[in-house]
Amino acid sequence: MASIDEALAIIRRGAEEILPEEDLIRKLETGRPLRIKAGFDPTAPDLHLGHTVLINKLRQFQDLGHEVLFLIGDFTGMIGDPTGKSATRPPLTREQVAANAVSYKEQVFKILDPEKTRVVFNSDWMNELSAADMIRLAGQYTVARMLERDDFDKRYKSEQPIAIHEFLYPLVQGYDSVALQADVELGGTDQRFNLLMGRILQKHYGQEPQAILTMPILEGLDGVQKMSKSLGNYVGVNDSPGEMYTKLLSMPDQLLWRYFELLSLRPLAEVREFRNEVAAGANPQEYKKLLVQEIITRFHDEQAAATAHKSAGNRVGLGEIPENVPTVEVPLEGEEQLAIQTVLRLAGLVKNGAAARDVLGRGAVYIDGEQLAGQRFFVAGDDCVIQAGKKKIARVLVVK
Amino acid sequence: MASIDEALAIIRRGAEEILPEEDLIRKLETGRPLRIKAGFDPTAPDLHLGHTVLINKLRQFQDLGHEVLFLIGDFTGMIGDPTGKSATRPPLTREQVAANAVSYKEQVFKILDPEKTRVVFNSDWMNELSAADMIRLAGQYTVARMLERDDFDKRYKSEQPIAIHEFLYPLVQGYDSVALQADVELGGTDQRFNLLMGRILQKHYGQEPQAILTMPILEGLDGVQKMSKSLGNYVGVNDSPGEMYTKLLSMPDQLLWRYFELLSLRPLAEVREFRNEVAAGANPQEYKKLLVQEIITRFHDEQAAATAHKSAGNRVGLGEIPENVPTVEVPLEGEEQLAIQTVLRLAGLVKNGAAARDVLGRGAVYIDGEQLAGQRFFVAGDDCVIQAGKKKIARVLVVK
Repeated sequence: MASIDEALAIIRRGAEEILPEEDLIRKLETGRPLRIKAGFDPTAPDLHLGHTVLINKLRQFQDLGHEVLFLIGDFTGMIGDPTGKSATRPPLTREQVAANAVSYKEQVFKILDPEKTRVVFNSDWMNELSAADMIRLAGQYTVARMLERDDFDKRYKSEQPIAIHEFLYPLVQGYDSVALQADVELGGTDQRFNLLMGRILQKHYGQEPQAILTMPILEGLDGVQKMSKSLGNYVGVNDSPGEMYTKLLSMPDQLLWRYFELLSLRPLAEVREFRNEVAAGANPQEYKKLLVQEIITRFHDEQAAATAHKSAGNRVGLGEIPENVPTVEVPLEGEEQLAIQTVLRLAGLVKNGAAARDVLGRGAVYIDGEQLAGQRFFVAGDDCVIQAGKKKIARVLVVK
Repeated sequence: MASIDEALAIIRRGAEEILPEEDLIRKLETGRPLRIKAGFDPTAPDLHLGHTVLINKLRQFQDLGHEVLFLIGDFTGMIGDPTGKSATRPPLTREQVAANAVSYKEQVFKILDPEKTRVVFNSDWMNELSAADMIRLAGQYTVARMLERDDFDKRYKSEQPIAIHEFLYPLVQGYDSVALQADVELGGTDQRFNLLMGRILQKHYGQEPQAILTMPILEGLDGVQKMSKSLGNYVGVNDSPGEMYTKLLSMPDQLLWRYFELLSLRPLAEVREFRNEVAAGANPQEYKKLLVQEIITRFHDEQAAATAHKSAGNRVGLGEIPENVPTVEVPLEGEEQLAIQTVLRLAGLVKNGAAARDVLGRGAVYIDGEQLAGQRFFVAGDDCVIQAGKKKIARVLVVK
């Protein structure tokens, strides 16, 4: 068992804020496994390294002997957008929530210890609440204080509408902490207000209020803006080893120690040593490779980490099959036979018919490493690696 | 059947606002009995003439063939004050609500036609609503527009707290109109915002929105401030004929026509004629008496109206028993015998022991019209009219 001081050093690593730290210390001193809550969106998860900052912290709590309550906020997700203004936020069905939970598990259990993780759904208790209960909950907070929340404040002042139900969601999140009797809740810095709501409601319900811990938002590969899929500066948890390798080695040197702090699970002392070595003249690129190796091992395996440089950037010649080729399913109806032109299009290897003719005309189509001469038809069950030009390659499964 | 124009004239009488009048007209033109909704507080009713302004309007709708939905807002009453700040607003029990409903009926059926009145409780449908339903309802309106409501606006600007559940109550009131498929909702001018909420939610639920009608707040007997029990300028529905007579005859002359408009059910043409007669020199006091007679007849009966002047102001001699003496119960334990001094105090006929000695010393205590000389003891079952001085009189029931 780590001492309280050792535990605190691990917990503080990279954290933006622990509030109030004395509450956390008092809870750690009890010696019992604490209930560490973190809430996740119920929509289809497609995690990138930015999301894993929080999950790594959960893992650190697990390594210290605590239990993670991985909360999927499906209650609000199943309500959708009641203002009716956003056609893009239809309510989720129970089936979608279940499917998304499976996908979450596949991704987060590459970091979290399943033995110390309880995946919970807030619909389990929120669906039991009546309108009267919701009204009582809403009596626990004031309009003025809710309007102090950063985003509400901005929207109110700039006269952008805030629907009243948006005031209820932080209360639901706070009530989740009551239902789970959470000891600690983790979230991004943008969640600070909502995390504190848990404290207020727990006090009201006679519970010892949770400590809260916020983690910073990770910068993307550009080192400036936050990591985000839409900004293209991200590394996806499901990226191939080659992609991870290429992307991460491209990061600016000054980002390296930030990424080590937030994305590596190596002891801080070791990271400090690396840093000293670079300060003494060692090549930072070598340490990037160490970090890349750790990350690829986490999301794939050690072997993939050892060979990732081979497939990185698809730097392979025509006819040379790289590691970790993405797999694409091509659907087929009945006894249909699909021509290579059609398969190339369905597999996303060419954009249109003209591009297919072009790449075939240039003799740049390889099937299982063999150059294709002439026509080829595909039937159900065909399974081969097709390469179309130097950059496009996929393992194609023809399925009926 | 009244023509639409005749109906409108009756509906418009005394009304502050009809919104939108064209919606009301369209509904009247259908010729079907309309559902006229009005909401009432579920706390113990102790109505005064100010409250009857609205109830008179409901009666006028009934006389035009429509159905009154007398809504008792028990759902919110049974929640109480969830902020926990007001010890004076404990949640009502189902039994209290039922008892208060009985008391409402006793009072309002002196005006309303029970055959055309449906007494409904919003807990019937609100208790069926889930927290998710409440959230969906809250999605139908914005924080900014809710803050435009007069009282919220004032409190927000003066930094007085508004608990978030207070934003939900207008939505509940609006949803009541949906549940009842109300055609028209009536309320005081202070209810304008909440009445309009019904229109918004009905539209959202695909119903034709209700028309709304607001009635003014009645001035009290001083002719200046609104009628209110705490201001002492009121006439209670349960006041004795004598009290009604004395209070109403004391009103300033300029209040007479306002009261005729809002408190009388006489045709407007007749009232206009009275007014012309007074303008031509007739004594307004005579017309006050006509109004008083109508009001006493409504809340007591014709005979009481005819003889009210006798008991008015208790202007009776000592030993003369007036009509309509209030009844007071005096509790007694076991075989106890209560002295007249104690009975006078328990019955509220004197303030303290000194006053009891004084009134007895002056020989001003009469029992069933007989002057009391010396001492008298009371046992359970005693039932007599006790007069203590010229102004205090009560029928005393001694109960074990």
